[in-house]
Amino acid sequence: MNSLKKHFLLDPKVIFLNHGSFGATPQPVFREYQRWQRELEKQPVEFLGRRFTRLMADSRAALGKYLGTHADNLVYTQNVTISLNIVARSLELGPGDEVLSTDHEYGAIDRTWRFLSKERGFRYINQRISTPIKTEESLVEDFWRGVTSRTRVIAISQITSPTAIIFPIKEIIHRARESGILTIIDGAHVPGQIPLHLDSLGADFYGGNLHKWLCAPKGAGFLHARPEVQHLLKPLVVSWGYESETPSGSTFIDEQEWWGTRDIAAFLSVPAAIEFQEKHNWDKVRDECHELARDAQRGLCELTGLSPLHPQADGWFGQMITAPLPVETDIVALKTRLYDEYCIEVPLIEWFPSPIRAERSDQREHSRSVGEGTGRRAEPVEAVGVGNKLIRVSVQGYNTRRDIDKLCHALSLLLN
Amino acid sequence: MNSLKKHFLLDPKVIFLNHGSFGATPQPVFREYQRWQRELEKQPVEFLGRRFTRLMADSRAALGKYLGTHADNLVYTQNVTISLNIVARSLELGPGDEVLSTDHEYGAIDRTWRFLSKERGFRYINQRISTPIKTEESLVEDFWRGVTSRTRVIAISQITSPTAIIFPIKEIIHRARESGILTIIDGAHVPGQIPLHLDSLGADFYGGNLHKWLCAPKGAGFLHARPEVQHLLKPLVVSWGYESETPSGSTFIDEQEWWGTRDIAAFLSVPAAIEFQEKHNWDKVRDECHELARDAQRGLCELTGLSPLHPQADGWFGQMITAPLPVETDIVALKTRLYDEYCIEVPLIEWFPSPIRAERSDQREHSRSVGEGTGRRAEPVEAVGVGNKLIRVSVQGYNTRRDIDKLCHALSLLLN
Repeated sequence: MNSLKKHFLLDPKVIFLNHGSFGATPQPVFREYQRWQRELEKQPVEFLGRRFTRLMADSRAALGKYLGTHADNLVYTQNVTISLNIVARSLELGPGDEVLSTDHEYGAIDRTWRFLSKERGFRYINQRISTPIKTEESLVEDFWRGVTSRTRVIAISQITSPTAIIFPIKEIIHRARESGILTIIDGAHVPGQIPLHLDSLGADFYGGNLHKWLCAPKGAGFLHARPEVQHLLKPLVVSWGYESETPSGSTFIDEQEWWGTRDIAAFLSVPAAIEFQEKHNWDKVRDECHELARDAQRGLCELTGLSPLHPQADGWFGQMITAPLPVETDIVALKTRLYDEYCIEVPLIEWFPSPIRAERSDQREHSRSVGEGTGRRAEPVEAVGVGNKLIRVSVQGYNTRRDIDKLCHALSLLLN
Repeated sequence: MNSLKKHFLLDPKVIFLNHGSFGATPQPVFREYQRWQRELEKQPVEFLGRRFTRLMADSRAALGKYLGTHADNLVYTQNVTISLNIVARSLELGPGDEVLSTDHEYGAIDRTWRFLSKERGFRYINQRISTPIKTEESLVEDFWRGVTSRTRVIAISQITSPTAIIFPIKEIIHRARESGILTIIDGAHVPGQIPLHLDSLGADFYGGNLHKWLCAPKGAGFLHARPEVQHLLKPLVVSWGYESETPSGSTFIDEQEWWGTRDIAAFLSVPAAIEFQEKHNWDKVRDECHELARDAQRGLCELTGLSPLHPQADGWFGQMITAPLPVETDIVALKTRLYDEYCIEVPLIEWFPSPIRAERSDQREHSRSVGEGTGRRAEPVEAVGVGNKLIRVSVQGYNTRRDIDKLCHALSLLLN
């Protein structure tokens, strides 16, 4: 696994255990990225005008093949936050309607629903998913208790951000379809980390990032919409594709993909990212990372004497795990010492489950993380109940067992 | 002026007379762009997490100084289409309200208003600005005839896209303020082409592109909002900045600038673009380009025997002009021959003024251009009245008199 490190542009001085937040791009993919940018500059009108449609279609075709769906069901977006904003803002929800989510969701998406809930008067519910999770069945039952006759939308992560758990969304999507409820999946951490076949999964809407675990350049994500629900979407940024003079046959693509002049090199480099992982036998890399992630979780839990939030079976995590930290941990101070004294980049998270007795927890904060966005999210927040302190460890191809050992060693000193 | 050509990455084989559509970036600015991208890749969490706020603030400060406003009144966006979508979608307009625009507006912005007009039930009016324009006063009077007691918003370009005319917006903004009407200015072609001092201009909202005439990398634009109206805005992409855990003191910036993970290198390279123009004595470059644009318009009008759409005084145009083509011109065929036979990149536009007797021309197309977005906008559109065929010539620092001579020569052969 060591040999992969040389392909990445990461500062070798840093023990980088936070692939999850923004990803990292290998040099061949990054070179392709900057090559497209120079290509554009040679003849901007030819590139963004006459070649755009074909270039994007070719890139979408490669992505569709990789994700198990037709290219026409996909549009490139810069990230999942944007993908899910498109969906959430398109749906006609209002008073009397309910959107059911969980208390393990990502802060930006949580905010999107909170904003829209205030604007439009529907209820947004963060259903409690009790931890430690026992079984897939118990998780689904926990979640499904939040469904009522007013539930119009289920919005849920496939791999959760603050807790790094793989949710059994296939069963939830199946039950939702039977009940006539739309499903919107946050797959920010999925592509490249665990297998994803969009057509088999059957979600109505699915947003994914490609700059995270697929290692594409920053600002490469997608929105997938089943053909049957594409008509529900409206443009978020209205541009030439709305009431297009030259309709492509897909209103979905026409309305969502052209956002005016911008650099599209990240989208065009996605095929190179897919090829890089194929060329480097990424199934094996993933397996090795998964083993290392498991060992990291075990090591950290041994250190603290605390239990993980999910069963220790393979299906609950991929290349990213969390482990609980003692409740008295000062995560701001710990984060600073880990970086300043040990050069370890790893996120520490305070995660607030929904209160047991009040599952309708509109307007509450569900997680904050320290050190990845100090400018935006390091201050204390008003929280109900006690926050769970977690450390989230990402293992990517450039990591080694030595990185995990160093983390465990540092924590063994700093937590005492 | 010749000496500047070497700084640009444009294909030397192409006579590039369409700076207006997407701009072009000089090498020093482009190098800075790609340097920021490599810098990000060294430590993505430090860059996008801990350094983001400071980096963006520094870049905004340089832009604010350049544009004559405080940095807190600005947010970076990828382009004007996005800037004005933020504004248009935030305002609470409904049945009984009117948005007054002109028949010289840009297709994407025109579509934004048409879309919202349908969604929300307000009227969107493309007021006819008669051509040839006689005086500033007559233009303002033409426009103001569209104002009624229901006019809530005036949305107008400072430099028009299909017709390349500088509109006297200062007077319009002044009258609008007196009448309690909000002003939203499309300044896509302004920064870097003509002087812009946002605080003196006094528009409520102003969107500008920096990748066009300032020559910043693709995907650099801004939205300016007067402090007094910033509270009217809502986030277009809701993310961590909405109900921020770490408010910066500016809800405007918190809500509008962080859109999730994306490449922010274009924003960070704007100071380099400002410096490049300063270093290369751009006031002089602009003057020379302006002279050349004037000569191009004269030459083309002599060739066709047709008159420009505006008086031939300096204040009506900058580095970009249009000249009418004979009404029988097949602009698709002409565009193809200009590129294939003469390697000249120049847009030919069919522009449809609003009908004289029906100024409330909701739902109509106002321009289409050939060859800059064939994939999206080359097919005929349903149009009322006869389209004006125009050629739009942009003159940037890398252009020479020889480029204009070649264009005139080619047209003298192709139009006969």
